[in-house]
Amino acid sequence: METLTHRGDEMTPTGNRIVTFEKPLEMKVNTFKFPELITPQGKSAPHGAILKIVTTNICGSDLHIYRGSFAVPKGMTMGHEMTGEVIEVGSDVEVVKKGDIVSVPFNVGCGRCYNCKHMRSDVCENTNPEIDCGAYGFNLGGWTGGQGDYLFVPYADFNLLRFPDKDAAMEKIRDLTLLSDVLPTAFHGFAGPDWPAAPAYVVGENILIFGAGPVGRAGAACARLLGAGAIIVADYIQERLDLLKPHGVETINLSDGVPIEEHLERITGHREVDRVIDYVGVDCRGFGAEADKIVESAVTNAMLKYVRFGGMTSTVGVYCANPISKDPKAKKGHMDLEWSNAWIKSPRMSAGQSPTANYNHALMRAILNDRMPYLSPMMNTKFIKLEDAPAAYKEFDAGSAYKYVIDPHGSVRH
Amino acid sequence: METLTHRGDEMTPTGNRIVTFEKPLEMKVNTFKFPELITPQGKSAPHGAILKIVTTNICGSDLHIYRGSFAVPKGMTMGHEMTGEVIEVGSDVEVVKKGDIVSVPFNVGCGRCYNCKHMRSDVCENTNPEIDCGAYGFNLGGWTGGQGDYLFVPYADFNLLRFPDKDAAMEKIRDLTLLSDVLPTAFHGFAGPDWPAAPAYVVGENILIFGAGPVGRAGAACARLLGAGAIIVADYIQERLDLLKPHGVETINLSDGVPIEEHLERITGHREVDRVIDYVGVDCRGFGAEADKIVESAVTNAMLKYVRFGGMTSTVGVYCANPISKDPKAKKGHMDLEWSNAWIKSPRMSAGQSPTANYNHALMRAILNDRMPYLSPMMNTKFIKLEDAPAAYKEFDAGSAYKYVIDPHGSVRH
Amino acid sequence: METLTHRGDEMTPTGNRIVTFEKPLEMKVNTFKFPELITPQGKSAPHGAILKIVTTNICGSDLHIYRGSFAVPKGMTMGHEMTGEVIEVGSDVEVVKKGDIVSVPFNVGCGRCYNCKHMRSDVCENTNPEIDCGAYGFNLGGWTGGQGDYLFVPYADFNLLRFPDKDAAMEKIRDLTLLSDVLPTAFHGFAGPDWPAAPAYVVGENILIFGAGPVGRAGAACARLLGAGAIIVADYIQERLDLLKPHGVETINLSDGVPIEEHLERITGHREVDRVIDYVGVDCRGFGAEADKIVESAVTNAMLKYVRFGGMTSTVGVYCANPISKDPKAKKGHMDLEWSNAWIKSPRMSAGQSPTANYNHALMRAILNDRMPYLSPMMNTKFIKLEDAPAAYKEFDAGSAYKYVIDPHGSVRH
Amino acid sequence: METLTHRGDEMTPTGNRIVTFEKPLEMKVNTFKFPELITPQGKSAPHGAILKIVTTNICGSDLHIYRGSFAVPKGMTMGHEMTGEVIEVGSDVEVVKKGDIVSVPFNVGCGRCYNCKHMRSDVCENTNPEIDCGAYGFNLGGWTGGQGDYLFVPYADFNLLRFPDKDAAMEKIRDLTLLSDVLPTAFHGFAGPDWPAAPAYVVGENILIFGAGPVGRAGAACARLLGAGAIIVADYIQERLDLLKPHGVETINLSDGVPIEEHLERITGHREVDRVIDYVGVDCRGFGAEADKIVESAVTNAMLKYVRFGGMTSTVGVYCANPISKDPKAKKGHMDLEWSNAWIKSPRMSAGQSPTANYNHALMRAILNDRMPYLSPMMNTKFIKLEDAPAAYKEFDAGSAYKYVIDPHGSVRH
Repeated sequence: METLTHRGDEMTPTGNRIVTFEKPLEMKVNTFKFPELITPQGKSAPHGAILKIVTTNICGSDLHIYRGSFAVPKGMTMGHEMTGEVIEVGSDVEVVKKGDIVSVPFNVGCGRCYNCKHMRSDVCENTNPEIDCGAYGFNLGGWTGGQGDYLFVPYADFNLLRFPDKDAAMEKIRDLTLLSDVLPTAFHGFAGPDWPAAPAYVVGENILIFGAGPVGRAGAACARLLGAGAIIVADYIQERLDLLKPHGVETINLSDGVPIEEHLERITGHREVDRVIDYVGVDCRGFGAEADKIVESAVTNAMLKYVRFGGMTSTVGVYCANPISKDPKAKKGHMDLEWSNAWIKSPRMSAGQSPTANYNHALMRAILNDRMPYLSPMMNTKFIKLEDAPAAYKEFDAGSAYKYVIDPHGSVRH
Repeated sequence: METLTHRGDEMTPTGNRIVTFEKPLEMKVNTFKFPELITPQGKSAPHGAILKIVTTNICGSDLHIYRGSFAVPKGMTMGHEMTGEVIEVGSDVEVVKKGDIVSVPFNVGCGRCYNCKHMRSDVCENTNPEIDCGAYGFNLGGWTGGQGDYLFVPYADFNLLRFPDKDAAMEKIRDLTLLSDVLPTAFHGFAGPDWPAAPAYVVGENILIFGAGPVGRAGAACARLLGAGAIIVADYIQERLDLLKPHGVETINLSDGVPIEEHLERITGHREVDRVIDYVGVDCRGFGAEADKIVESAVTNAMLKYVRFGGMTSTVGVYCANPISKDPKAKKGHMDLEWSNAWIKSPRMSAGQSPTANYNHALMRAILNDRMPYLSPMMNTKFIKLEDAPAAYKEFDAGSAYKYVIDPHGSVRH
Repeated sequence: METLTHRGDEMTPTGNRIVTFEKPLEMKVNTFKFPELITPQGKSAPHGAILKIVTTNICGSDLHIYRGSFAVPKGMTMGHEMTGEVIEVGSDVEVVKKGDIVSVPFNVGCGRCYNCKHMRSDVCENTNPEIDCGAYGFNLGGWTGGQGDYLFVPYADFNLLRFPDKDAAMEKIRDLTLLSDVLPTAFHGFAGPDWPAAPAYVVGENILIFGAGPVGRAGAACARLLGAGAIIVADYIQERLDLLKPHGVETINLSDGVPIEEHLERITGHREVDRVIDYVGVDCRGFGAEADKIVESAVTNAMLKYVRFGGMTSTVGVYCANPISKDPKAKKGHMDLEWSNAWIKSPRMSAGQSPTANYNHALMRAILNDRMPYLSPMMNTKFIKLEDAPAAYKEFDAGSAYKYVIDPHGSVRH
Repeated sequence: METLTHRGDEMTPTGNRIVTFEKPLEMKVNTFKFPELITPQGKSAPHGAILKIVTTNICGSDLHIYRGSFAVPKGMTMGHEMTGEVIEVGSDVEVVKKGDIVSVPFNVGCGRCYNCKHMRSDVCENTNPEIDCGAYGFNLGGWTGGQGDYLFVPYADFNLLRFPDKDAAMEKIRDLTLLSDVLPTAFHGFAGPDWPAAPAYVVGENILIFGAGPVGRAGAACARLLGAGAIIVADYIQERLDLLKPHGVETINLSDGVPIEEHLERITGHREVDRVIDYVGVDCRGFGAEADKIVESAVTNAMLKYVRFGGMTSTVGVYCANPISKDPKAKKGHMDLEWSNAWIKSPRMSAGQSPTANYNHALMRAILNDRMPYLSPMMNTKFIKLEDAPAAYKEFDAGSAYKYVIDPHGSVRH
């Protein structure tokens, strides 16, 4: 239950509960003060807005923090996949209105630098004083995380995606909540390297996906949306793979002892595919004899191995220097890659975060026009209360087949 | 029943029945001699192949010939949408083998000119001595049409698309027969102007399609394959529109007296769309008060009117100087267009034939991987005998909702 | 000499002289009050900035207004090609600073709509309440023109291009003043229809340009910058063509009686080119027997005639309903085009305004790195005083070979 | 002097001198028999042609073979950068004619596989039975090398680039000889990852190039042709860098002890660039303390370090498992890369060979239209006799600043 207080003419809450990182394998819910239109550097933000969170998802990249493989300070607020209702806007917000239901791209863009102007909000030059990349709920610019009750969003007109109709939005909130990160991030795996403009030519392509977690499953859904040929997802967790099978997706259980190339040949007639996407990231397990340990380079080398001559790879999973790795190279952010061997294949590779704002409008339209009926069953969303988030982190890390979505205010009928 | 004769070691047929154009509104089946590996200019063609036709479709552009609006000589052989079995190959054919089931792109490409090398076989520089465009069954280079028993295909290794498995091909022949023209041609409407490389960004786009004939319906199917937003098809023939409705397509019956912009607003919330495609061509009827006559410029001006600022138009329907037009301008190939008014919208426009070979491989993969379950019911294919082709032309011209596919040798189970 | 008054802590001028349109063939300089951070709709603009104009060019599209072929109200302020020094910024301006020397794109973009976010500021959805297109000094949103002393620029962080170094900027001001319109607009002619992303493949292309006015000459300069093959410029005014000849450009004087295709063949070996660009617009003269009159469709049809099969055309020159035309069709914004004849060529066409902000940063870098030594001699810039602007309009309309640049405050050494 | 013999009606030479690899650091000229229209597998090739070599260059990638870091069998014929006169054509060659002067792309493409049809002749599926990549003078399909008197070229109509005029070709042979490999290969470094279609947006980009050998110098020339911003070339060999300085290129001598980022900041104002290209390959030296030894990963890691957030890298230099390396990883084709650290930058990377045929036509046009006056002085071509080739390999390996071009028949005036 919320306590309210006066804020101008209106009653506003006094507090803001948010999930925080305490230490590896421990998340907690703490109460902070209600957000203001002020940047992490303490600057007034007339371009900002305050949202009441409708839904806020737990992301696979949150697990890197949870496990300790992506280092963040103790007490850091978590959450970067938010959907909310606008309850306050700054004096220079013109497009977004109070009452709008909006999706928040996990990237914090300024809309005013060269990269943002060219739809590269994943590498905004202004929202993180340290590097050209800002995000909520990471130590990337100090933006407060959104696994909470309320959220401050800067540059609201640039960043927020408005849903055209409030009722229709709440009706499809189970799919629309995916627009803040997991669905556009998955979609980014299909981008060509000219990607601010257009996805490459995906129709009919054979696709190999590593990872059947939420983003991998969303990747399979995007492959279907884009008219791919064979869509093949590899993982160790059968329960996750089982969500995909009824929806036109082939699966590989990596524990089965059959070399991946033989699966590919059986399914496609070829031992290599047109495109390979890594939706796993730095915590990936090895293959075969190394299946029981973390081998940071495993998926990256597998991409180079299974991509055809002239094909593409895309590294969507998060990579970073891994402080808890047992491999001294990986600790420093290095990897032992088969780069020299792969050169002759003329591969094209992309890596890094999705510029969510480049894709979310198109994907919203696809959802609102019912183009992805397979999305909900593939994602297997489970709505939870905010106070249950720490437990959900634990279940998710253990390999749960749910996509956990926090509903802090009980807004969603389910 | 065929008569066979010796040809080398083998028995080959002595004749080749083909549909021919006699005069406007009259087609006939005539018997010609069995094809040889010889070009229309009488040159030996070691790069060529002879096909036994499996299926050969009647195309909407054949109707322009049938009606007399695309002028061709009396007795010209018809047909450019062929699928066949390879029964003979020239001495310089290496990739295609006897026994292969193949799709024949309607464009005749040489694979050796600048345009063909850059996947622009629609404007091949070598296969028509008069202009940079060759095709079967048109007066575009003199290539014999394929609504018949057998067909000579030059540059077989470049032109032919092999189906990987014969049985699987015959199983899906109802969809695969569309790869020779109608499906890639429809797909071409979604290409960006950088289209030899990639379709533009179709996901979530609102699409307005003029024409619910076979290519318009295939266009709606492509819009679904590519993940479009609202897909809206306008036509006068309700029976054709009815084929689309159960499959996620909105329809406009142009006879209903409601302005198109009001339909658009009701469906999408906007009075303009992202992309408009003309799948009708030179014989198009006017709108409103002009609905009962041919108004050559009607659809082209409507495209400029209903495309949004910054949107795209694509003219897939065939245009040409129309010898039977009552409009003296149209007779000479001119049109009265709202070009000056449209300029401020910054439109991007493309027109012309599809380079089929740029798309057919990808679309074949989509079909073989079951990505278009809606294709067959939308297309409403009817298999007919070769001798029934002249009657089918008449029915098709009268507005039939079938896609007519000739099965000259009774190869297809149906 | 300026009169100053207090404005906050500082002395600011009381007035602002601006060129205004009085009636066809008559421009005047009027004095207005000093600009404020307020939109044409009277709304406060914390995102705006005030510039002291350094240079402000007269554009070929200003001539359409001057002649009366682009209708605007009496007394409208003129000017959309401005470079200035920032002297005041609103409370939500963060990137642009007082003292910066900046180029002002002629498009007024909001940076917050779908089109602006996708680098399509030419079709901004918010800066003109009537249509999706805002600009200074046109009746496109009511934004005050900049052929004056001072200018209000909204959405300053999004719109303005900062020059990295003030002294270097003033050193190269003769070239940098072209970045507000004429150079990016010319460059836009080379864009592919996927152009928010990348120019098409211009290296080695043979280019035919209609118009040797400033934007046509800038087009020839862009063709050189992009590594084109043969660059051919056609015009009636020899003095303008002569500026191009020493710099690797071929010229056609349209008065010489030689058919264009013969010139093309002599220069390139072919009667058609890869790309044709119209830098003339609605006031274009006809060819041959029609050379002495305005034939609105002349250049557009010539583009379709001289583009090769599979080539591209681009309509950069301004088209609109022409109220002073003698052709009733042109009065309504219609044209008689050879569209049907051109269809078989598979042309790709684009038309409309340049999204200046998509190109100006790249072109600024090219200028600052001395990549266009031919630009200044081709452009033949003449600096004039503000009070001489009305006379310059007259000379420019009469076919002068200068690019007129107004230096209202005497800032430029020349 | 050649010995001639009858071949059909004509006298043809009896022999064919070709450079061969004997062992690391030893090349030799051996005499073979005159080529026939027969593939390495002994199959008749009616699609082939025989060329009399006009010029044939020594390439930097030949040095990998010379040094032993790219393993090939003893006695293998060398040479893949050929220009020649067609002296014989097979029965299925239609476009290329006897007497034509042609450039031979180093890639052997078939023009009939999926990749070749999509302008990816670098990964042809048919011309090498072992992997999807065929080339002359490597062990990539067994195609005889062209550092000799004569050459057999298969699929002549697809592979050969005809120069439109023989005299003009011989006039510019110094530049045109670069079209077979070094210039298109250099150009490929500027391709976007959607590169079969178009180079990415190079205008105004700041470029860092590793390697001032012939391909690195050609890369600097391409950067100029494409209108780049700052062009910065880094190498250890001052004599090579000196060739670039007078032509608008900045240089870094890696021996000077100044960190690269400081050079970048001085030149561009930033410590990172838009695009980094590796024109060195597997034999690269390390930086700083490691300058005196081969460090296979040095340039690749430097690319990831100096590319800006959102930038591109391109690996044009040849990489392969290096049998002579002292690093056991490099021996197996592995590298220790800072992949995890680089991920956050969202880099786009491409690697591998150039599909020469995708670029050579455009670059030929640029040369014939005099768009690259800086090319000859940058390349510093030295014509040599065939018998002097072994000595030239040695000088080239020692760091000579020449581009060596063999003129086996004394065809070139110099």
